Amino acid sequence: MKKKRKICFVIVNRANYGRVRNLMKFLIEKEFFSVQILLVSSPVLKKYGGLDKILARDKIKIEEVIYSHIEGENLITMAKSTALLLQELSSSLARLKPDIVFTIGDRYESLATAIASSYLNIFLAHLQGGELSGSIDESIRHAVTKLSNLHLACTKKSKDRIRKMGENPKFIFNVGCPSIDTIKKINFKERVNLKKYSYGLGFKVDLKKPYYVVMIHPDTKNYEKNLKLVDEVFKSAIKLNEQVVWLWPNSDAGANIITKKMRSYREKNKKIRMNFFTNLEVSDYLKLIKNSKCLIGNTSSGIREGSYLSVPYVCVGDRQYMRERGSNVIDCKIDSKKILDSIKKITSKKISKSTIYGNGRSIKKIYSILKNINLDIHKTFYD
Amino acid sequence: MKKKRKICFVIVNRANYGRVRNLMKFLIEKEFFSVQILLVSSPVLKKYGGLDKILARDKIKIEEVIYSHIEGENLITMAKSTALLLQELSSSLARLKPDIVFTIGDRYESLATAIASSYLNIFLAHLQGGELSGSIDESIRHAVTKLSNLHLACTKKSKDRIRKMGENPKFIFNVGCPSIDTIKKINFKERVNLKKYSYGLGFKVDLKKPYYVVMIHPDTKNYEKNLKLVDEVFKSAIKLNEQVVWLWPNSDAGANIITKKMRSYREKNKKIRMNFFTNLEVSDYLKLIKNSKCLIGNTSSGIREGSYLSVPYVCVGDRQYMRERGSNVIDCKIDSKKILDSIKKITSKKISKSTIYGNGRSIKKIYSILKNINLDIHKTFYD
Amino acid sequence: MKKKRKICFVIVNRANYGRVRNLMKFLIEKEFFSVQILLVSSPVLKKYGGLDKILARDKIKIEEVIYSHIEGENLITMAKSTALLLQELSSSLARLKPDIVFTIGDRYESLATAIASSYLNIFLAHLQGGELSGSIDESIRHAVTKLSNLHLACTKKSKDRIRKMGENPKFIFNVGCPSIDTIKKINFKERVNLKKYSYGLGFKVDLKKPYYVVMIHPDTKNYEKNLKLVDEVFKSAIKLNEQVVWLWPNSDAGANIITKKMRSYREKNKKIRMNFFTNLEVSDYLKLIKNSKCLIGNTSSGIREGSYLSVPYVCVGDRQYMRERGSNVIDCKIDSKKILDSIKKITSKKISKSTIYGNGRSIKKIYSILKNINLDIHKTFYD
Amino acid sequence: MKKKRKICFVIVNRANYGRVRNLMKFLIEKEFFSVQILLVSSPVLKKYGGLDKILARDKIKIEEVIYSHIEGENLITMAKSTALLLQELSSSLARLKPDIVFTIGDRYESLATAIASSYLNIFLAHLQGGELSGSIDESIRHAVTKLSNLHLACTKKSKDRIRKMGENPKFIFNVGCPSIDTIKKINFKERVNLKKYSYGLGFKVDLKKPYYVVMIHPDTKNYEKNLKLVDEVFKSAIKLNEQVVWLWPNSDAGANIITKKMRSYREKNKKIRMNFFTNLEVSDYLKLIKNSKCLIGNTSSGIREGSYLSVPYVCVGDRQYMRERGSNVIDCKIDSKKILDSIKKITSKKISKSTIYGNGRSIKKIYSILKNINLDIHKTFYD
Repeated sequence: MKKKRKICFVIVNRANYGRVRNLMKFLIEKEFFSVQILLVSSPVLKKYGGLDKILARDKIKIEEVIYSHIEGENLITMAKSTALLLQELSSSLARLKPDIVFTIGDRYESLATAIASSYLNIFLAHLQGGELSGSIDESIRHAVTKLSNLHLACTKKSKDRIRKMGENPKFIFNVGCPSIDTIKKINFKERVNLKKYSYGLGFKVDLKKPYYVVMIHPDTKNYEKNLKLVDEVFKSAIKLNEQVVWLWPNSDAGANIITKKMRSYREKNKKIRMNFFTNLEVSDYLKLIKNSKCLIGNTSSGIREGSYLSVPYVCVGDRQYMRERGSNVIDCKIDSKKILDSIKKITSKKISKSTIYGNGRSIKKIYSILKNINLDIHKTFYD
Repeated sequence: MKKKRKICFVIVNRANYGRVRNLMKFLIEKEFFSVQILLVSSPVLKKYGGLDKILARDKIKIEEVIYSHIEGENLITMAKSTALLLQELSSSLARLKPDIVFTIGDRYESLATAIASSYLNIFLAHLQGGELSGSIDESIRHAVTKLSNLHLACTKKSKDRIRKMGENPKFIFNVGCPSIDTIKKINFKERVNLKKYSYGLGFKVDLKKPYYVVMIHPDTKNYEKNLKLVDEVFKSAIKLNEQVVWLWPNSDAGANIITKKMRSYREKNKKIRMNFFTNLEVSDYLKLIKNSKCLIGNTSSGIREGSYLSVPYVCVGDRQYMRERGSNVIDCKIDSKKILDSIKKITSKKISKSTIYGNGRSIKKIYSILKNINLDIHKTFYD
Repeated sequence: MKKKRKICFVIVNRANYGRVRNLMKFLIEKEFFSVQILLVSSPVLKKYGGLDKILARDKIKIEEVIYSHIEGENLITMAKSTALLLQELSSSLARLKPDIVFTIGDRYESLATAIASSYLNIFLAHLQGGELSGSIDESIRHAVTKLSNLHLACTKKSKDRIRKMGENPKFIFNVGCPSIDTIKKINFKERVNLKKYSYGLGFKVDLKKPYYVVMIHPDTKNYEKNLKLVDEVFKSAIKLNEQVVWLWPNSDAGANIITKKMRSYREKNKKIRMNFFTNLEVSDYLKLIKNSKCLIGNTSSGIREGSYLSVPYVCVGDRQYMRERGSNVIDCKIDSKKILDSIKKITSKKISKSTIYGNGRSIKKIYSILKNINLDIHKTFYD
Repeated sequence: MKKKRKICFVIVNRANYGRVRNLMKFLIEKEFFSVQILLVSSPVLKKYGGLDKILARDKIKIEEVIYSHIEGENLITMAKSTALLLQELSSSLARLKPDIVFTIGDRYESLATAIASSYLNIFLAHLQGGELSGSIDESIRHAVTKLSNLHLACTKKSKDRIRKMGENPKFIFNVGCPSIDTIKKINFKERVNLKKYSYGLGFKVDLKKPYYVVMIHPDTKNYEKNLKLVDEVFKSAIKLNEQVVWLWPNSDAGANIITKKMRSYREKNKKIRMNFFTNLEVSDYLKLIKNSKCLIGNTSSGIREGSYLSVPYVCVGDRQYMRERGSNVIDCKIDSKKILDSIKKITSKKISKSTIYGNGRSIKKIYSILKNINLDIHKTFYD
């Protein structure tokens, strides 16, 4: 009989948690794994989702909490937060001695996790490697790939790209994204209760009537363009003259520029049919976009989950540049007129469901790989 | 006329300095560049080379010093030292605002430098990317490549490998290693004064007579094998029954295992014709190996500089696994008999000079590239 | 002629800056001093006052900026932020080599500053030592005293207390608080423009009519009481049925509990005659409380500046426990009825101006001391 | 029945451990306490005593290990190591949630421990507060006192001094030093086996014949005097023309200056009757000085344990300036002639045993206090 494997998930925020929640629950139920969960960065803070309470509700035990997010939301504090997390995570992983560390995507926390695991000679599994995008996230993602031992790619092309980067094909799998598995369990007929996410006073959105969703994250590589980005999207959103649900950005460098603008819109435009909301639970977020007329912004979820859900998505600016996409996405420059045109175009088109990011059988595939993979930490460039 | 470019070199130890010293001096003399030098980790400490004094002697100004090496020389402290350096380097680079950051090789300090530069959107030039080796250094080196903007490869194959990893060919150059330029300036007929590097009492080596050189660095990926490695090399070195110059290891995880052994040999074997030396200046080190009968160990310099100098080199264990090499190198398992056999074999062979690591015109090439390259920080995977 | 003295001020937030702004300007104008200013923690962030812009406007040069505030506003992140600041401040002070470091009060940043200076053998001047209060601030303040070389006490009793703690009387002075000097320069007839500090929508305060001011900072030693504190004050403030200006708390542990409550009040009580404001400039803040009917809360400024300005002040809870006070202050338990009673009592009483915190000649005294004091860093307990 | 109390000891090096080892063992045996032990700084490293192995031998469980000692042994790295320890200790204490934290003396690690405990509102017990000495240690020690809740003073005068500093007499006790309890258990007739502590080759000391002991720690407040200090002591030690056992210094700033000198003496003076030893176990150290003709240096142990053991002690320089002492100590300037005179004087004098540092009943007293003390963390200055 095989020895039980200790696997450690490093969770950084609500989106992160949403993507692997069901995978973790699946592994916890299986006897073969012993699951350790670290909450790092600031996810315990209310404003970043109060994940400790959510995990308690989901009956998932937290092993350790590491506060490592330095205030500032600028480029310096991102670099320094990476450092702070790496500092303590090294001690934590040395203490917890997992057989496998599991990290996701391309955030600075993923990089810190990858470095700590590499130096400590712990086998590192990376989900969502090999994808393309148009910001610093891409460099981080590929650097994490070069530090990882197991690559759980979410698309065929990502898998090929990881292979091309010199990774050993024995350790690369296209498993699809577990977020598609999550989608399959959601009842999209249930209505979202927006009240619990309300940020301050303002227009009351009625989800039974048509509405648009906006979500803009800061673009860290084009720091100076963030102001224009949010302005142009705002202008176009106003001209729609329909209900708009605008969601709060993540906490990357530049976020404060965006949120400041958002606050100022709210103050100055008291009569617009728009309101602002923070920290939606993943399933509520997905219901919200699924039932919207169109999603506008630069989030990767419009591409990833959006492709499977057939959500019309106007992707503004360079942040998702080159990310693999289905027919639900239309790209668009940072210009309010072009945004309006794109909205018109994409909402009038018939969009078919795409499975480039998986077909909802990802969790079982990952389970089987994690169970059987040879935990060999020696890597060399594979020609 | 072009605007002057500020270029910042992050120097971590004497070997590091040795490799770019002449390049930095060249750039300092040219009006086009303004050179900033950071000494980081522990290079100011006497036991790691007292670089502050050496730079003063070389009339090179130090911009800032960052102490960031956490004692321990184990895997945890390597990870944590990376963190500590990243923490402060982020503030330093934000303060110094260089146009270009220049980093070298595959040490943890290179990774910290690469991350800080990436997050701060500073153009990063990386020397010695794309090479292969058999330890964590390799993963680090490739991760640095994925974070770098300009790749100054030292061999043809390295250049090709960087390209394969998805980097843009416009930013990849095979410049050869500037350490070969350095070699060309050395007068190999001058004798080395070993006294100034002496570590404690013991046998007096006479460099006019035949001698062997040993240098073993810890293998961080095969942590537990370090003890055996040093033991087997020692056994074979004793059996040579000739003069042996044994050089102190670097400060990576596992170094203490090696130095403890070295101290114990010295104590217990008072009559052996061997002695131990620390922190040789680069030119003295090169003279020493050039004029030796054979170099034994696992240092990359036996491959890199050794190939051009035609130094017979017995490369023991996996640390340089797959690194590109000339005919001066013979690989060998960790076994004293096999080491002796390999010494016999390589010293009886005619070795011709190799230029795989360059022909000594590297510095001018690098200068010209750094001067003319478009400092564009936007990267995407190049298929 | 004496050698110019380099003096380094470590500034952490707007209140901090307000207290020494005029002192710094005075020193900058004098040839004898070379003034270095470090902005640390998060003062550059807009939400903490955007001090970089204010200093630019005041034509004061910033030497270095250190981001060191870890998000969380709880007890762990306060301890960790102290660490992070100490980490980098050590490098900064080693680089800047001031003759004197100047620190203020009892915040975690003051402690980090004191430790860095002590270890680096730099003469440390401490303003506002020896005072009493009822939270962790008090322990921090006294610990800073034991690490300081020069004590610039603000009251007679503080001076005596510092002496009692074993400090050398040659290095203890009662200079009064430089904030009283600042008060003397303010034109209290000028009206405050509240608009620029507005936090969101809500009731429009008319400062020409009577109003109350509320300011509650988190009590870090009575962490669990913060919720009750803010609730009881809110209840009493509502019952006043008059205009209320409520000011945002500082960023200590527990602040989020308070701000969350404040946001919720605003949402749920749309018709109350109260509004919320953030980050007032010091002179505006002083005008605001000077012209108010009464100040309610637990800020030390109601005691310190309030005593000289004769501002009726209801001091709620233990946070200012035992701090030396004038007749403008009435202490009060955390109970809405008692708060209302206390407001009635203090506002019906004739209050005379007190000079326990100085008479406005503090800056010149400090200047003269800093100029002439023997910069001896050797301390021993003075019986 | 009382609830079990969790008590956390933060141990930093062998001397530290030596002083509380028996106390910890006593507490572990008692059911009332649950003892948590943290090894911090570098005590796990062989060169600093390999405490993990010693604790394993003593059957004491280690809760967590924190590597936090930054290489450099200078003033900057001391400040930065304080920071690094504070960083991680905050997370550790938040995780372990002890009822009491126990810290010792005046090292930078004690200060980090005190700050972490204070911010986390954990009751802090401090051993050896209130003492005097002539270096930065003194400021640190008093700062720790002002952050502590319970003061376990080792002498009557220390107790009085703590009281004078404004601490509450209910929380101050003169318990004597537990190191005196340890002395009572030692069999001073057993001979020390010096071999196991040998540092390199050299003269063979015969402990059956008369010998002197030298131990010099760096003086951090008189950094530049360390060179002279070690030189003058060496000169006098040579002139004694007797056997000399010279013990390695601790790792404070300046240690490298001393050890470098020590190495150079050994090299240049091959015929002297002196040898050098590192990391003696506490009981061996005490036997060694007890049976020596005289102890020379600046260690506090010559005063503390030396007073009870009646060891003639020539205390050189200012490092122990003003520390309370018995008649076994003679103070002496940094001058080889004066040192020789002092040696003559003190060794010709009859020395009687002193109990100023306790009579060997300290552990039981501390146990009883820790068991019964009210764990109230609220402090205010006590007039």
